[in-house]
Amino acid sequence: MKLQIIHGPNLNLLGSRETSVYGTESLDSINKKCEALAQELGCEIATDQSNSESDIIDIIHAARQGVDGILINPGAFTHYSYAIRDAVAAVQIPTVEVHLSNVHSREKFRHKSVIAPVAAGQISGFGADSYLLGMRALVGLIKNA
Amino acid sequence: MKLQIIHGPNLNLLGSRETSVYGTESLDSINKKCEALAQELGCEIATDQSNSESDIIDIIHAARQGVDGILINPGAFTHYSYAIRDAVAAVQIPTVEVHLSNVHSREKFRHKSVIAPVAAGQISGFGADSYLLGMRALVGLIKNA
Amino acid sequence: MKLQIIHGPNLNLLGSRETSVYGTESLDSINKKCEALAQELGCEIATDQSNSESDIIDIIHAARQGVDGILINPGAFTHYSYAIRDAVAAVQIPTVEVHLSNVHSREKFRHKSVIAPVAAGQISGFGADSYLLGMRALVGLIKNA
Amino acid sequence: MKLQIIHGPNLNLLGSRETSVYGTESLDSINKKCEALAQELGCEIATDQSNSESDIIDIIHAARQGVDGILINPGAFTHYSYAIRDAVAAVQIPTVEVHLSNVHSREKFRHKSVIAPVAAGQISGFGADSYLLGMRALVGLIKNA
Amino acid sequence: MKLQIIHGPNLNLLGSRETSVYGTESLDSINKKCEALAQELGCEIATDQSNSESDIIDIIHAARQGVDGILINPGAFTHYSYAIRDAVAAVQIPTVEVHLSNVHSREKFRHKSVIAPVAAGQISGFGADSYLLGMRALVGLIKNA
Amino acid sequence: MKLQIIHGPNLNLLGSRETSVYGTESLDSINKKCEALAQELGCEIATDQSNSESDIIDIIHAARQGVDGILINPGAFTHYSYAIRDAVAAVQIPTVEVHLSNVHSREKFRHKSVIAPVAAGQISGFGADSYLLGMRALVGLIKNA
Amino acid sequence: MKLQIIHGPNLNLLGSRETSVYGTESLDSINKKCEALAQELGCEIATDQSNSESDIIDIIHAARQGVDGILINPGAFTHYSYAIRDAVAAVQIPTVEVHLSNVHSREKFRHKSVIAPVAAGQISGFGADSYLLGMRALVGLIKNA
Amino acid sequence: MKLQIIHGPNLNLLGSRETSVYGTESLDSINKKCEALAQELGCEIATDQSNSESDIIDIIHAARQGVDGILINPGAFTHYSYAIRDAVAAVQIPTVEVHLSNVHSREKFRHKSVIAPVAAGQISGFGADSYLLGMRALVGLIKNA
Amino acid sequence: MKLQIIHGPNLNLLGSRETSVYGTESLDSINKKCEALAQELGCEIATDQSNSESDIIDIIHAARQGVDGILINPGAFTHYSYAIRDAVAAVQIPTVEVHLSNVHSREKFRHKSVIAPVAAGQISGFGADSYLLGMRALVGLIKNA
Amino acid sequence: MKLQIIHGPNLNLLGSRETSVYGTESLDSINKKCEALAQELGCEIATDQSNSESDIIDIIHAARQGVDGILINPGAFTHYSYAIRDAVAAVQIPTVEVHLSNVHSREKFRHKSVIAPVAAGQISGFGADSYLLGMRALVGLIKNA
Amino acid sequence: MKLQIIHGPNLNLLGSRETSVYGTESLDSINKKCEALAQELGCEIATDQSNSESDIIDIIHAARQGVDGILINPGAFTHYSYAIRDAVAAVQIPTVEVHLSNVHSREKFRHKSVIAPVAAGQISGFGADSYLLGMRALVGLIKNA
Amino acid sequence: MKLQIIHGPNLNLLGSRETSVYGTESLDSINKKCEALAQELGCEIATDQSNSESDIIDIIHAARQGVDGILINPGAFTHYSYAIRDAVAAVQIPTVEVHLSNVHSREKFRHKSVIAPVAAGQISGFGADSYLLGMRALVGLIKNA
Repeated sequence: MKLQIIHGPNLNLLGSRETSVYGTESLDSINKKCEALAQELGCEIATDQSNSESDIIDIIHAARQGVDGILINPGAFTHYSYAIRDAVAAVQIPTVEVHLSNVHSREKFRHKSVIAPVAAGQISGFGADSYLLGMRALVGLIKNA
Repeated sequence: MKLQIIHGPNLNLLGSRETSVYGTESLDSINKKCEALAQELGCEIATDQSNSESDIIDIIHAARQGVDGILINPGAFTHYSYAIRDAVAAVQIPTVEVHLSNVHSREKFRHKSVIAPVAAGQISGFGADSYLLGMRALVGLIKNA
Repeated sequence: MKLQIIHGPNLNLLGSRETSVYGTESLDSINKKCEALAQELGCEIATDQSNSESDIIDIIHAARQGVDGILINPGAFTHYSYAIRDAVAAVQIPTVEVHLSNVHSREKFRHKSVIAPVAAGQISGFGADSYLLGMRALVGLIKNA
Repeated sequence: MKLQIIHGPNLNLLGSRETSVYGTESLDSINKKCEALAQELGCEIATDQSNSESDIIDIIHAARQGVDGILINPGAFTHYSYAIRDAVAAVQIPTVEVHLSNVHSREKFRHKSVIAPVAAGQISGFGADSYLLGMRALVGLIKNA
Repeated sequence: MKLQIIHGPNLNLLGSRETSVYGTESLDSINKKCEALAQELGCEIATDQSNSESDIIDIIHAARQGVDGILINPGAFTHYSYAIRDAVAAVQIPTVEVHLSNVHSREKFRHKSVIAPVAAGQISGFGADSYLLGMRALVGLIKNA
Repeated sequence: MKLQIIHGPNLNLLGSRETSVYGTESLDSINKKCEALAQELGCEIATDQSNSESDIIDIIHAARQGVDGILINPGAFTHYSYAIRDAVAAVQIPTVEVHLSNVHSREKFRHKSVIAPVAAGQISGFGADSYLLGMRALVGLIKNA
Repeated sequence: MKLQIIHGPNLNLLGSRETSVYGTESLDSINKKCEALAQELGCEIATDQSNSESDIIDIIHAARQGVDGILINPGAFTHYSYAIRDAVAAVQIPTVEVHLSNVHSREKFRHKSVIAPVAAGQISGFGADSYLLGMRALVGLIKNA
Repeated sequence: MKLQIIHGPNLNLLGSRETSVYGTESLDSINKKCEALAQELGCEIATDQSNSESDIIDIIHAARQGVDGILINPGAFTHYSYAIRDAVAAVQIPTVEVHLSNVHSREKFRHKSVIAPVAAGQISGFGADSYLLGMRALVGLIKNA
Repeated sequence: MKLQIIHGPNLNLLGSRETSVYGTESLDSINKKCEALAQELGCEIATDQSNSESDIIDIIHAARQGVDGILINPGAFTHYSYAIRDAVAAVQIPTVEVHLSNVHSREKFRHKSVIAPVAAGQISGFGADSYLLGMRALVGLIKNA
Repeated sequence: MKLQIIHGPNLNLLGSRETSVYGTESLDSINKKCEALAQELGCEIATDQSNSESDIIDIIHAARQGVDGILINPGAFTHYSYAIRDAVAAVQIPTVEVHLSNVHSREKFRHKSVIAPVAAGQISGFGADSYLLGMRALVGLIKNA
Repeated sequence: MKLQIIHGPNLNLLGSRETSVYGTESLDSINKKCEALAQELGCEIATDQSNSESDIIDIIHAARQGVDGILINPGAFTHYSYAIRDAVAAVQIPTVEVHLSNVHSREKFRHKSVIAPVAAGQISGFGADSYLLGMRALVGLIKNA
Repeated sequence: MKLQIIHGPNLNLLGSRETSVYGTESLDSINKKCEALAQELGCEIATDQSNSESDIIDIIHAARQGVDGILINPGAFTHYSYAIRDAVAAVQIPTVEVHLSNVHSREKFRHKSVIAPVAAGQISGFGADSYLLGMRALVGLIKNA
């Protein structure tokens, strides 16, 4: 079983960026935790970060070759990228949307995800744990499919 | 560590109710899975279901005596019970909101949670797994607190 | 054939409450008229009034045991109780929503019913007759089912 | 006692038009059922169908000569014909608005009636029975007037 | 100088219709007052009433043959007939919109005119005088053109 | 019979201000035309211009001493001065609101008058003639009162 | 003279709940202050707290037996309980709505009260004093009735 | 193959009406171009213009006798005639909506079509060519059906 | 302790203005009641009425010299004077907003106060008593500060 | 004459992506059909697909060198890319917007195009034929320019 | 070259008012900085502060006598004074709107300026520097005019 | 002191693009003016233009290495790129948003900036001068930091 983890725009700055909102943990550290959990769950992961909407679309398209599930933190794209939404809907691979912070307690524009309606589910508010919970959720979805 | 799991209105019908949306698994079965995971995670759980807003408020209030975390599926109360929201905000115990279905792909009124802004986070779309993921999320929150 | 008639909040005050809007007929009198019509139509009825949302949900749930149709005047719950809506959707018993007054000519918040979309139909504006018409409607629905 | 029944636009196609929404019963068949009920109730009816807003206004105006009640299914005019609304308000004859389908569970624009606020009441969702229930409602209104 | 006066839907009932809103003066009486003023102002008038949107459009189109100004009380069409709006815009004859009642102090839907933006001006609230003032306004517009 | 004419903010610049919208006629010229018509109609007028909301309120209050009707062009105050609205409602003297330009064909914020609902009526779009028509309207209202 | 004081949901936690918003005074302390003022004002009070919408409705209904005025802090029910609104409107006992905090400076959903339109008046922002002021207001209303 | 072409309200004035928006070509000229293309495409056409909503509904209904496709420029009815929408939905004949001007670059009310959701597609902005393109589109739809 | 009482626009007409809404008591009478209560409470008051927004701002600014609390009935300014709001926020003197009528049961525009969010609290609906209650509220705020 | 055809995001998946919405025809097949029509119409075409907003902007900019018309299916960018809109407006080359599906009968966010207001026209709903019709439309626009 | 600088309501309190938002610099200090820059730029300035909307309108009107540019910080009037907007539009002198704070990061009502659409431009967020930048902007506009 | 100047999408076409809105000055010319001012102010600048959202994000991220202030004209991204907003918020370098045209007097969608709330301030409407003023603003911010 192979999972594609996608980190959206500005997540490369994690750990130094608005730490009161996003915490002090770096993206590297999160990726390592994901790697460790992948081993525990007996699956393989690929992790990519991009600030580019089209790169993210390309990664989602490429996932049609051998990827069983997609874990995506679309960052700010969550709120307006109908193009990523269409990509997720197009590839028909189980997809879980995750957020580090609790988007529902922040600015109003962050309350709405244009991607979530075509994802399998959404997890938000648990920092790095959002990713780990998302991986478990994906594995469950794939096994039950 | 003790967790209080709260199932909101109509969840007692789980397994027989709109199975295309909510699946065929009964509430009992979900509670058993939670119990099993609790043992694995080394924590204790109490599970309650109620169709009554005030019962749910009372359970949340009572949690101030010895409960370390609250897992709540507020059902339809998610969308209008500011009284439950105030209860969650009042007790200041880490709280996770979970949903069986992906609320973001259903009727528009289900897209908004009045409770999520005062919860720690939200998980939706994974059936019974939403509860199990929520328990793991809670344990993480409590350990990191 | 058995019908469950449910009178929502504040309907116990009927006859003394805002008589310019709701008329001077008491709930008792309406129930007696319903009883009389039930005999004419050859069906059995149970009538309940409650000011409690959860009681009404419980009555709807209980209707799964032997009730063929539900007639409900949800009173003010009409406009916000998504929990009652979910209960009606869950039990899948033909349900008719009735109102004594013409909700469409009153305050704006009364124009919208959150329950009607999952009911079979809605009747409003005919005082006690709304109930009698609703009973006839229900019997028709059940016979044609 | 004389009742005027008015069928609005596109109802002439009943039975062949979108049968999943409107059923397979023809307008003729509905009119015959109304006729039968009229005899039972001891009243006289006139039935008219028109696709024309102005024809419907003219029929409503004409009703001032000897008609005791109006039963109208305004079809799509329900949602925008303020001219028909004004006609109903002008003639001050008890008027009941009926719909074959449950307008509250269809497209959003069908949830609002611009005519209902000046009608005595509204009945929707019971197919041909909506008309029969509307006739009974009218007779009740006229008798109690 | 020739003026076309157009009375919209339901105005044929004037004098008997909702007299608390529209007064007790008949359309005939208003037409006679207009006729008298026309003589005083040295112009000719034609007066038409119709409950039909298309008739009104046709009258507006016909006005291109010899009519110098149009006075229209569009009745309820004021609020939704974009077709009449387009007719007024198409013929490019000075047009004045009048209302018997003060539309700004009635139901909200009456506050908006879809026709006024393409008329020269609007007069509302003065009963039959609205027509007489409108005639004077038109004559002024035509003389200054 | 005495009429108070009130010119609101910026109308002192008439004739030099945005002439494509407001025309080239000065306020003085309009006042002279009003004076001439007053003589013709056998009434007396007072004319005041002010850029100050409170001055206008004071003029309206003062009108309770011997003024039979108020003609007001509230200028931009039309769209937000609830204080002037309350003044008009308070003095209970017949009041007509006039506008030089057709407010309905200009910016959206000019479509709404907060004062018109408490005035007797509104006239807009006829340049200086709006005032003259308004005077005639007022005289009619006073005579019919 | 007898007053019924009703404390809504979560007010039982007063003094320990979100003290930066609601202060550190307990409900008991507030009730004692009310009791003291009642003695000063020469009236009798009953105080009840409930987290249940239906309990509050029942208390309001019961007030028809001998209660002269109702003081209610509806808590979060303020913003959505049309059922409590209908109860207040039904019993026609002078009712004053009070709030500890200034609801107008908090979250947007707290700015709107669905109950205030049928109450005699509203007092918010003065902590325990809101209750004492409300009692004085009620006594004034009852004396002037 | 037979196509019904329907020109909505005010299109009879084409060529003389607001030529900066609609161009100088007459309806006759457009009909001749359609006729020529019909010959090229080997199909038959009928062309009708009407300012009447009910006439247009009747033409659509009549199309059930032998017409394979409908091309409609609903003019201003585009924006509010739910009755025409229902007619199009009822007859289930492939229907294409066309507009001479680019409705998306004009007044806001022209951006929304209430008919397009039940048509097969929409073409706007190409003057007379919109009709010719629409005919080609229809022929393609019919051939592929 | 010194309190500044500010009466906003049109309140000078109190007693003669819309007495069904505002009652028959004059402003003088209210001021005298305030004076009497001030003596009882052992504080000094200054009372000012103005129809001018800038006068009211100046009074608020001046209050920085020796005034301990401000009681303001902003009249219609309540609903749009962000300038008065800013003045209240600027001087940082405890301020209470009062209204004679229950603004929540009147026109929709009166439901919103732009000033209340920066005041300490709001009292509405008790006629002259609103002022007296407001004075007590202010004294409480000042003593507790 | 040279036309630039631009396929927006996710259109590279055509034929395999959501075939119930977009059909089973591949982008290659559509390009071939366009090529064939180009030969028939005697013009040259270039076709490009990109998932990148900036690539599409660059292609539009480049079109200023020798391209006579642009045919663009902006995919999901239709609904939010004001940057593409500005590019289309900037180059002032006739541009036609096309869509495979009928955007007006899909999710609400697809009803609005931010690009169409600056395009010459829009064609939607005809599958691959939308492109062919768009090419014909463009050729017509260019010839008439 | 002469510039008129206008400081709107509450700016006289600068330096003592909400210093976390507006800083500790007094209006005097700002005026001195402006004076210094005027000398550097070789132009003359007049500075006025007023809490009165009509005073500000009068100053703008007076600027027609010899003033080449207007710099205005309308304070709270920014958000509702259509009268000041009309004054700016009327005098047709280049006008720059400035704000001390970044209005876009404050309360929602501060995001909208009703004056900016008729000003040449807007500068916000730079404290006293907003004025100095605005002066430079004005001088540039006047030189380029 | 080093400043990074970022020109957003379509600004490479400056001077040839919609010159009535954006003027005839090229981007090169603007950059030269900025360079000249930089020398005058004693600071260094880097200038970049990109049509790509991700490039702009990358430039903002890179600015963390040695850049003291960012001047950005986000072009159309202003209105929807929450990703650029998050980048600006993340790097915590003083940032000024500038626009050539007065965005407040153009299409409604241009009135709102999603980036301005996290910038230090905004300058719009002064053509190339907007950049020069922005540089001065930035230098002021950096010196005062």
